[in-house]
Amino acid sequence: MEDQTELVGKTFVGHYYHLFDNDRASLSSLYQPTSMLTFEGQKFFGVDDISTKFNQLPFDQCRHMISTIDSQPCPSTGGLLIFVSGSLQLAGEDHHLRFSQMFHLIPTPRGSFAVQNDIFRLNYG
Amino acid sequence: MEDQTELVGKTFVGHYYHLFDNDRASLSSLYQPTSMLTFEGQKFFGVDDISTKFNQLPFDQCRHMISTIDSQPCPSTGGLLIFVSGSLQLAGEDHHLRFSQMFHLIPTPRGSFAVQNDIFRLNYG
Repeated sequence: MEDQTELVGKTFVGHYYHLFDNDRASLSSLYQPTSMLTFEGQKFFGVDDISTKFNQLPFDQCRHMISTIDSQPCPSTGGLLIFVSGSLQLAGEDHHLRFSQMFHLIPTPRGSFAVQNDIFRLNYG
Repeated sequence: MEDQTELVGKTFVGHYYHLFDNDRASLSSLYQPTSMLTFEGQKFFGVDDISTKFNQLPFDQCRHMISTIDSQPCPSTGGLLIFVSGSLQLAGEDHHLRFSQMFHLIPTPRGSFAVQNDIFRLNYG
C-alpha cells in the first residue's frame, strides 16, 4: 500500500509539471518568500526572483515526462523531500532533455505545502 | 566567494564518495538511527538497514566521478540539502553509469553533520 508521503509527492509532482507545461506563470503560487531555487547552478531567492527566472526561460511551450518519483518524510519540518527524474521536450523539437530535480516541501498555515527548496539539473549524457 | 553551505556540501560530497570507493563499510558512520535511504526505489531505515544494503551491493570496487554539486541551507533543521550528479565506474568495466543523488544533512550534537535523507537514482539514457 502506498504511504501518505508517496501519495503527497506524486500529487505534487503531477500538479507542478502540469502547471509548468500549461500555465507557467501560476507556478509562483507554489513558492513563498523564503523559497530557494538552484537552476542549472544559478541561485534564486523568493517568489519574485524565482517567477522571473521561470518566465524568462528561453522557450515557450514544453512538456515534462516523469520517469521516477521518490519521496521521503522530513520529520523536523513536517514536510517532505521529493526526488524526480524525467525528460523535457521543447515545442518543435524532437529530442528529449533528461533532467533530475529535487523539492523540499513544507506545510503552510492553510493546510497545503509550499516549495522551500528546489534544485534542478539537466543530465548531460 | 563561496558561501558556507556550498563549502560544507562540497566537503561532505568529497568525503562521502571517498569512503564509498575506498572503505564502504565506514559509510555507516555518516548515518544515524532515524536516517532514510531510497536506493533505486527501494527503501531502507536506520544505520543497520542502510549499511546492510551498501555491503550487499553486487560489486566490490567502484569509482564515483562527480559532475555537479548544488547545496542549499535548510533553515528549519539547521542543516543543508545537497544535490549531486555524476557517474559511477565499476571495477573491470569500461562504461560509466550516470547517477543523481540527494542528501539532507542535519547537525549532530558533536558539531558535525549526519545524513537524515538520502535518495539515489541511476539515470538511464
